[in-house]
Amino acid sequence: MAEKSLYNYRVEPQEVDFTLRATLASLGSSILNTAGVDAYGKGFGVDVLNADNHSWVLSRMAIEIDRRPEQYTDYTVATWISDYGRVLSTRNFTLTDAAGCEFGRAVTQWAMIDLTTRSAVDLSWVGREHEEAVVPVPPPAAMPRKIRSVTPTQRTEHRVVYSDIDFNRHVNTMRYIEMMLDMLPVELLTCEAPVRLDIHFLKECRFGQTLSVGCELRDRSALFEISADGATAAVRAGVEWQENRA
Amino acid sequence: MAEKSLYNYRVEPQEVDFTLRATLASLGSSILNTAGVDAYGKGFGVDVLNADNHSWVLSRMAIEIDRRPEQYTDYTVATWISDYGRVLSTRNFTLTDAAGCEFGRAVTQWAMIDLTTRSAVDLSWVGREHEEAVVPVPPPAAMPRKIRSVTPTQRTEHRVVYSDIDFNRHVNTMRYIEMMLDMLPVELLTCEAPVRLDIHFLKECRFGQTLSVGCELRDRSALFEISADGATAAVRAGVEWQENRA
Repeated sequence: MAEKSLYNYRVEPQEVDFTLRATLASLGSSILNTAGVDAYGKGFGVDVLNADNHSWVLSRMAIEIDRRPEQYTDYTVATWISDYGRVLSTRNFTLTDAAGCEFGRAVTQWAMIDLTTRSAVDLSWVGREHEEAVVPVPPPAAMPRKIRSVTPTQRTEHRVVYSDIDFNRHVNTMRYIEMMLDMLPVELLTCEAPVRLDIHFLKECRFGQTLSVGCELRDRSALFEISADGATAAVRAGVEWQENRA
Repeated sequence: MAEKSLYNYRVEPQEVDFTLRATLASLGSSILNTAGVDAYGKGFGVDVLNADNHSWVLSRMAIEIDRRPEQYTDYTVATWISDYGRVLSTRNFTLTDAAGCEFGRAVTQWAMIDLTTRSAVDLSWVGREHEEAVVPVPPPAAMPRKIRSVTPTQRTEHRVVYSDIDFNRHVNTMRYIEMMLDMLPVELLTCEAPVRLDIHFLKECRFGQTLSVGCELRDRSALFEISADGATAAVRAGVEWQENRA
């Protein structure tokens, strides 16, 4: 039976904010990087899929970070696929420090798209062909939440540029997260309370589009909605910090 | 006598554009990361300086990339300090692929600032105390060029947000580079010709400021000037691609 796969990281100087702790976006980046590297190593990465005119697309993600590790801290990301459905596969992650203490976790759900039609295809065959890659350990956190409606109290615009786009030619997941979090008070972003982020992708946003980022800010939480060129929502997300531990 | 220090990297999925090659910004990020890690390991990193209310600040940088490595490619960054002056220290870099072939190089010049006055201090003492860290090998490229005047043909504005700032609370070097390159045609950014980037920091830009980014675009080159809140130039830069090798 398959085991979780482990990947080692270190909090690099480019990844910390002025509190000298890893930003939420940089930890999210390590998590998504791990997904790419693990799929690549196991033979069902974007490289193999592309040859067949397919690609993986992230549909939903939930990240929980209990405490942000300090600069130069080593940590390990464990990842495993717990399920292949017809439309979505579920890939899970835990983040542990050098002492083996878990400080974060994530659950991601991925669709496979046809690169010509940009629509989802049946991915059951991956589950059959790569059955040995499934690890029967349930997700370490509640599944990503669907955010159904957002009533923005503030808005900002962002034109999609080269540095925003990824190998799929659409906006990089971490850039979406950065443009949303950038609307929040710095005090909240740099506080040391546990945080959970849910993000839900409805449509792709592409180079040259102008995005409208709406934020509904509450006390220690916020909801977000991003739409491109005046169309319906492309991304919705929610973030919530627990009360500060004194 | 000191030797060059070597650091290993791999082009991660988050670092490539749709050509599946590392972006110029991601290679620059590895170079600057190497500077931080090397100084930290040798006992004159920002951590030690901060205890004394000092910090390193990048003053000028030149990067030459002959070809951008592909996703999942391993590469090595070698770094060495060739000189400590009274105001600037010179740190050099070469980038080599797994076969030992050099595909890029950089020269950086660093000042030390007092964190209260934000002005440069005499750093001769670092040269004396860490003389053993100096490697008598000259810089691998022409020194960073001073760009004296820019006549922008296009302009964009950028408000400095949380994800732009670094451990020093000022705009991250790679973000400056991204906001400048994002003004250029994608065809130029993704071409495979050798490129050289020179960047020169005159003033710090900080959280909440609004930056004006001016670009003077020529055929295969561009000059840039960034200023904050209507003040004089904070950053000037130039980038030039050689003719495409067919």
